[in-house]
Amino acid sequence: MDKEISRIGENTMSEIRFDLVTGKMVIIAVERAKRPHDFAIAHQEKKGSKDCPFCPRNENMTPPSLVEIKDGQGKWLVRGFTNKFAALNTEVKEIDVPSLYRGEYGYGVAEVIVESPYHDVTFGNLTLEQMKRVFHAIIERYRSIVKDEKIKYVQVFKNFGPRGGASLEHGHWQVIAIPFIPELVNREVEGTQEYIKKERKCPYCEIIEYEREAGVRLIGENEKFVAIAPYASQYPYESWIIPKEHQEKFEEIDEDSLSKFVEILKPLIEKYEKEFEMPPYNIVLHTLPPRDIRNYHWHIEIAPRLTIAAGFELGTGVHINPVSPELAASILKLQNL
Amino acid sequence: MDKEISRIGENTMSEIRFDLVTGKMVIIAVERAKRPHDFAIAHQEKKGSKDCPFCPRNENMTPPSLVEIKDGQGKWLVRGFTNKFAALNTEVKEIDVPSLYRGEYGYGVAEVIVESPYHDVTFGNLTLEQMKRVFHAIIERYRSIVKDEKIKYVQVFKNFGPRGGASLEHGHWQVIAIPFIPELVNREVEGTQEYIKKERKCPYCEIIEYEREAGVRLIGENEKFVAIAPYASQYPYESWIIPKEHQEKFEEIDEDSLSKFVEILKPLIEKYEKEFEMPPYNIVLHTLPPRDIRNYHWHIEIAPRLTIAAGFELGTGVHINPVSPELAASILKLQNL
Repeated sequence: MDKEISRIGENTMSEIRFDLVTGKMVIIAVERAKRPHDFAIAHQEKKGSKDCPFCPRNENMTPPSLVEIKDGQGKWLVRGFTNKFAALNTEVKEIDVPSLYRGEYGYGVAEVIVESPYHDVTFGNLTLEQMKRVFHAIIERYRSIVKDEKIKYVQVFKNFGPRGGASLEHGHWQVIAIPFIPELVNREVEGTQEYIKKERKCPYCEIIEYEREAGVRLIGENEKFVAIAPYASQYPYESWIIPKEHQEKFEEIDEDSLSKFVEILKPLIEKYEKEFEMPPYNIVLHTLPPRDIRNYHWHIEIAPRLTIAAGFELGTGVHINPVSPELAASILKLQNL
Repeated sequence: MDKEISRIGENTMSEIRFDLVTGKMVIIAVERAKRPHDFAIAHQEKKGSKDCPFCPRNENMTPPSLVEIKDGQGKWLVRGFTNKFAALNTEVKEIDVPSLYRGEYGYGVAEVIVESPYHDVTFGNLTLEQMKRVFHAIIERYRSIVKDEKIKYVQVFKNFGPRGGASLEHGHWQVIAIPFIPELVNREVEGTQEYIKKERKCPYCEIIEYEREAGVRLIGENEKFVAIAPYASQYPYESWIIPKEHQEKFEEIDEDSLSKFVEILKPLIEKYEKEFEMPPYNIVLHTLPPRDIRNYHWHIEIAPRLTIAAGFELGTGVHINPVSPELAASILKLQNL
């Protein structure tokens, strides 16, 4: 057996490690050596706009801009840059892996997109135009990041509220690019292939057709998108927005579809923020990995975080959801789209 | 297409539903029709022993005892009963499943084991004797529950703190028995079979041997058990306690091993509760499903809940852990076992 060198206390780099029995991956990303008491702050809400690194005039508190969408006066309306506390390494190196195990160097990219110059405006309160700007900035960074052939998947997401995992209050999105296709993504893409092979139809296209007719899990629809509470919702009041047309990659969305997308997304987020009194939530983009030639149907999943996954979920991987998707849809139902 | 009957507002029973694309299961368990504002309380800590249904003299607030371990005066020291807010149905019925999807009736058993008569004593502060009583009660209920052939797996776990998913403060364990082998359990058992097929050795036995020699992830050991921070820890300061002897099922533990088990478990939980100032945590039993003839090696996994799984984890299934297991072990290290 190799004698392991203890890396305790070092500011080590990120590693991707695999569980010996299940193969389950984890990213060990030691920004600083986090000792027990460093987590106390994670339990508190960080409030207030003083010294907020995402507010205008504090740009020097963050790395330089990688994307900026500006108004007529040259002031930024949306701004993106490298995440200062990135979970991944941008240089390429080798690491030692203990002989029994499997691990990899954690190469990747982590960026932040600030969604508005205003500290206190929530995502649901952005104008339709501003929401489109956010996605324009995300798509610009996405396209740039995937030029790197080492990147195998890019996760785009928004965390809202401390219990939604947001460590800063000022509204923002995150873009994390990784050198592997993560298992949930692969499972969805594989599941799509298998369904098509068996049924000769895209499962998401089937869901759209079924839910529009059944009605009980339909939240709303417009010309180009449907919003539903999925049949097997893992989270209470979970919703998905899916393009009606079979479209594989979010980043290939055209201008007209993007308009229709924010026209259904905005009232839905507004509804969550209002009905649930600013609940913690996550918005997660599901799209085909870059350069993947398999079939898929992109969509976004919105998960309010009203319950806590606890011992049962940790042990079994199965969520207990105390709200039926049928009830969820009846409460989230959107009028006048 | 069948016309779905809306079950909105009904006090429906539990259903097990499968995601059309991934096959991922969820338990939809509608205790009451939970509307948005019903979740407000889930965000607050429920404190205080007044009207605590788990305190002595309030036994009439819970279903009748299924197990009681008593002192010399006939007062209970540990008490178990059916969970009033069970996530599963105890009667057997048929349900209608919409034609596109796959779902099952949610048959199962959910019970609670109150770990002490004292409202304010934490698990780490129980005596060794009392800890043993808790496991005696759990094992008694476990053995009784699995006599039902419809039960395919029993998840035993403890949630501590509101952020650990505990809805009541008075220390307790939960036992949830389900009519299927959940995917994480199956993945571990399958992973064990595959490892044995390839390497001719149990992977957990290998981990024990490797970690005892490497030392950097070893938290402590006694004659019968090791405690380690696992190489691919998903949670900061995660730990596992594994029997040194290859043993498949927790419920077959003998009295001497149980003594050695609590002798390593107690100081470890004490350490968490003290060093992290009562962090939320989960303790999760991993054991071979009843009547399963495959090979396995039981153990418990302890996950303090210091970070929040957010958009990245929801989208990818991959956790980002900001603490290296090597640092975790150095801080959790147990002396004088």
